[in-house]
Amino acid sequence: MIKLSIEETVINEKLLKLKSSSGSHSPSIFTLAKKIDEIKISIDACFLSNPYATDVFLDYFKKELLDTGKLRDCLEFYPSQNYIIAEYISKIINVSKEYIVVGNGAIEMIQTVLHNFVSENILINIPTFSSYYEFLNSSTRALYFELNKENDFNLNVNEYIEFVKKNKIKNIVLINPNNPDGGYIPYEDLLVIISSLKELDNIIIDESFVHFAYESEELEMKSVANLVSSFDNLVIIKSMSKDFGIAGIRCGYCIMNKERVSKTIRNGFLWNSSGLAEYFFELYSRKEFLNQYEVVRRRYIRETQIFLQGLESIPQIKVYPTKANFALVELTDGTKASTFVAKLLLKNGIYVRNCNDKIGLKGEFVRIASRTYDENRAIIKAIKELFTHREE
Amino acid sequence: MIKLSIEETVINEKLLKLKSSSGSHSPSIFTLAKKIDEIKISIDACFLSNPYATDVFLDYFKKELLDTGKLRDCLEFYPSQNYIIAEYISKIINVSKEYIVVGNGAIEMIQTVLHNFVSENILINIPTFSSYYEFLNSSTRALYFELNKENDFNLNVNEYIEFVKKNKIKNIVLINPNNPDGGYIPYEDLLVIISSLKELDNIIIDESFVHFAYESEELEMKSVANLVSSFDNLVIIKSMSKDFGIAGIRCGYCIMNKERVSKTIRNGFLWNSSGLAEYFFELYSRKEFLNQYEVVRRRYIRETQIFLQGLESIPQIKVYPTKANFALVELTDGTKASTFVAKLLLKNGIYVRNCNDKIGLKGEFVRIASRTYDENRAIIKAIKELFTHREE
Repeated sequence: MIKLSIEETVINEKLLKLKSSSGSHSPSIFTLAKKIDEIKISIDACFLSNPYATDVFLDYFKKELLDTGKLRDCLEFYPSQNYIIAEYISKIINVSKEYIVVGNGAIEMIQTVLHNFVSENILINIPTFSSYYEFLNSSTRALYFELNKENDFNLNVNEYIEFVKKNKIKNIVLINPNNPDGGYIPYEDLLVIISSLKELDNIIIDESFVHFAYESEELEMKSVANLVSSFDNLVIIKSMSKDFGIAGIRCGYCIMNKERVSKTIRNGFLWNSSGLAEYFFELYSRKEFLNQYEVVRRRYIRETQIFLQGLESIPQIKVYPTKANFALVELTDGTKASTFVAKLLLKNGIYVRNCNDKIGLKGEFVRIASRTYDENRAIIKAIKELFTHREE
Repeated sequence: MIKLSIEETVINEKLLKLKSSSGSHSPSIFTLAKKIDEIKISIDACFLSNPYATDVFLDYFKKELLDTGKLRDCLEFYPSQNYIIAEYISKIINVSKEYIVVGNGAIEMIQTVLHNFVSENILINIPTFSSYYEFLNSSTRALYFELNKENDFNLNVNEYIEFVKKNKIKNIVLINPNNPDGGYIPYEDLLVIISSLKELDNIIIDESFVHFAYESEELEMKSVANLVSSFDNLVIIKSMSKDFGIAGIRCGYCIMNKERVSKTIRNGFLWNSSGLAEYFFELYSRKEFLNQYEVVRRRYIRETQIFLQGLESIPQIKVYPTKANFALVELTDGTKASTFVAKLLLKNGIYVRNCNDKIGLKGEFVRIASRTYDENRAIIKAIKELFTHREE
């Protein structure tokens, strides 16, 4: 069992205090650096993104905005309106732009959908991303469908559909792959759910991690985005922060029926994309960029597979099956999650996610993101050393 | 009277079509450039910002983000949460952070306040910034208080207060200085309004242009922000796009009572600032930066005064009194606003705001922003030439 020294315990108190003031999320690395002097982060494995995609983006950014001086325009002038930026997305995902609202991050679209289109009750699988219950209108009741660790957090589709019907559920949300466990619902199963629950007000599918998922060795991703014209209650939420490694730019979008899109745009969301977000979406619409991105998407998935194997080889932890770019890890030797997080941070500068605040998790859990190949090796080495030193 | 050639008329049709698809706003210069090949914009006098402030910001941006390589962190990682960024603003405006919500531009805060805290009815002075009526909940009725051109769009404070009381108004909004006319309500008059209308649900004061206003030759600005702790119904909306010249970054904030701030943050707005917005607000909190900004703020106001004198010397137009960084201009020789805008754009590459869509304006109006000293001279020269050539 890992234990903290007295000095580490003192710093950990500050860390836990900061964590608690950040609600059910981790404080950003900027906040950590600002608030706790003793902390030096070298690897942010809290952060769920493909670092190679950031590199691809930054190459274009340098060549097209920095070297040309065009960056000033992006910072100084108003960006285009929502419907103009939606055209870029439309081109790539083969969904007509009338179904698309561009968001200041997916989180803005989660907020918008929950505030404007969800009422009465909503069924949320747990463990989950907390905003799906925290952002609900006060009049909407959250009901929980528990995914069990004994069943590797797998969703039993038939049981799920039955539960929805029996409990008169009006809205459901499925994150696919799920955060924080990475569990994946195959495309065919999702189709069964969507076509069985046409009477619901909303079927929200959050595909923020779908670029990391695959159903065969070809590593193709499968999205339900193109079903939106057939199912009026289908809402797809998509973050670009994870797959493209640009969380700081705030890019996301929502796909839903035309009436809702039109109502949303008429009543707000005028200039909610920054100049850099507009640049990103324009870049995203280009074949050349996407081809380069596809190479690093596959590379990152393969390296993540290697990383997961490495984690699985550590006897003091249990790694749950994941098709995302992170793993939910249970500490099985009696070590507390907060102790593990603090030790790894203070000794190795590696920041991982304490999952103590996740409702529906029974036990000591942390979530660890896959980073670059070298960082992943460093993470595994550090964790192995933590557990070995314990025995000295 | 200015007239268009046949070629210009054809392009103007495209321009008007694009304008109409942008709702009650101008299409961005990026949208224009993308959609209409023939248009080359050299001066964007639609755009209401201090260009010298952009220069000051860009100096820091280059030195601190580009040259150090720290820009990557701003683009790649999640920004800090709302309450962390509110601390920077709090430091400078002397308002406790519990009263502050940071927005993805002021427009997001306008949307939030109207959607969540305004109901029944709202009194809006016209002409006005259209989002104040377009973003209302469908159940909220907009009532209009007309500012007359015969009275130079001045607000008669006593009449206004009487109108509010007599008509059982629940919410009011005052943009100070007003957009699109630049009319200014002195601090003492605002105090009278605020202290006379304590029974209202919301007194919304939009101070987005307040950095350009002044009450004496010292050019000091006066904000009502610090009154928020005394008046529970006071809501201050502030854009940073205009005064700091960074519209593309999307920075704004809202000041209102603590309960509303806490409700707003609990129910959303988790990562609504980008990495660059966080950098801007941190910079904004520094004395050294603010001192440099203050120099260009005063310079820009003085040059705007010279610009306004230049416009006033043109006999075919009437320039209304303004304390903002723009002027509402009436074409008094029979020229249509759309003709004037198209001619100036196609002949000189100068983009000004057609005010045809502004409710409450009777006549042909355009809004012209003050830009750099040289650009301002070019704008005046071009307008003078347009009217002279007419007579040839």
